[in-house]
Amino acid sequence: MTRKAVVLLSGGLDSTTTLAIARHEGFEPYALSFRYGQRHAIEIDAARRVAAAIGVADHRIAEIDLRLFGGSALTDDIEVPKHRDDAEIGEGIPVTYVPARNTIFLAFALAWAEVLDAQDIFVGVNALDYSGYPDCRPEFIEAFERLAALATKTGVEGRGVRVHTPLIALSKAEIIARGLELGVDYALTTSCYDPSPNGRACGGCDSCLLRRKGFAAHGLNDPAQDVGATPQA
Amino acid sequence: MTRKAVVLLSGGLDSTTTLAIARHEGFEPYALSFRYGQRHAIEIDAARRVAAAIGVADHRIAEIDLRLFGGSALTDDIEVPKHRDDAEIGEGIPVTYVPARNTIFLAFALAWAEVLDAQDIFVGVNALDYSGYPDCRPEFIEAFERLAALATKTGVEGRGVRVHTPLIALSKAEIIARGLELGVDYALTTSCYDPSPNGRACGGCDSCLLRRKGFAAHGLNDPAQDVGATPQA
Repeated sequence: MTRKAVVLLSGGLDSTTTLAIARHEGFEPYALSFRYGQRHAIEIDAARRVAAAIGVADHRIAEIDLRLFGGSALTDDIEVPKHRDDAEIGEGIPVTYVPARNTIFLAFALAWAEVLDAQDIFVGVNALDYSGYPDCRPEFIEAFERLAALATKTGVEGRGVRVHTPLIALSKAEIIARGLELGVDYALTTSCYDPSPNGRACGGCDSCLLRRKGFAAHGLNDPAQDVGATPQA
Repeated sequence: MTRKAVVLLSGGLDSTTTLAIARHEGFEPYALSFRYGQRHAIEIDAARRVAAAIGVADHRIAEIDLRLFGGSALTDDIEVPKHRDDAEIGEGIPVTYVPARNTIFLAFALAWAEVLDAQDIFVGVNALDYSGYPDCRPEFIEAFERLAALATKTGVEGRGVRVHTPLIALSKAEIIARGLELGVDYALTTSCYDPSPNGRACGGCDSCLLRRKGFAAHGLNDPAQDVGATPQA
């Protein structure tokens, strides 16, 4: 029997690769996206394209307005920082960190997993490029698995969930290599923190720079970015 | 300096008493309610009345549609069971259990606490009357505190959150005694799983029966229930 898995899907490079990996590992994917008041609602369109291209059993979009609390450049009127290259990316926790976001996303995934009777959740967190985000670290994921085993009816019955993080220790270049191997079309994805209204990536935010560098490592241009785009300094 | 605390407030008897306790302990309460597709949106009105009566620094209502996943009598078209008295209340996990609900609620509380720089969350979970709900147990709360310390910027900086559960070991009668001592007006609250469109409690669901018994222990009628109401068998 095919095992169901809930896959968190933002429509970005990492979650798209994660979905391809879940499928490749033989799971039946149930994709879960969030409309959470992020500036880049364009993500949802990307998530729909990606889900259709890779193939999922179901795709649901949860509406959760995190603007209610603010506290992040992605949901608030805080400016998204721009850099000319990734050497300029700051240390510490970036302003694009959304308070408790992955805790909230995983809590929703857990709810759906319980209803589906699925024991697997996939999430494309990455501890290397996102070392500044506390909720991208392995110890956070392990703590969530321990919580999940106590939080739900299925957990109490001994069927806890495993949170799969296939990208957690990979570099962006390694993630891209894995995705290309699995036939992922990265032109469908979007990772930009601050896209233009027509959906083009800005080319200058931390996320765009990390992607560009990842593709460059393979001698490729990022298919989702205007190659000649001048980043806003 | 007054300490801020996020208080989960459903407008029911338990969360209302919890809010009164948080205030009494000297916290500045930030009340958080959820419109989560529950049948009884009447709860939100009760939460507003209670927040105004007890006094809070702020009250926010998060919209999260848990009907997206279903799986509970409170969000789905599953019938809410009715009983003539509490001896009929079933064993095990009731159909009114909402998958991962408290995990989701606490995740939102954590997000707001981080934005407020609050280190305290109050939640009116009760392990005695709600022994069937996995996410009402002390071990679940402890696991959430451990997760929170790893999940957030403030947690990483050593300012984790404490999740206060002042009701966790109390009987309904003890909860009511504490609330009355603190001047809570229980006529403002609603706990019914299946109220009539005009907001009257049904008198026959598990929640109504537990409340009624709690008031009866003090020789009182539940001020939020029609005393003479015949429960639907």
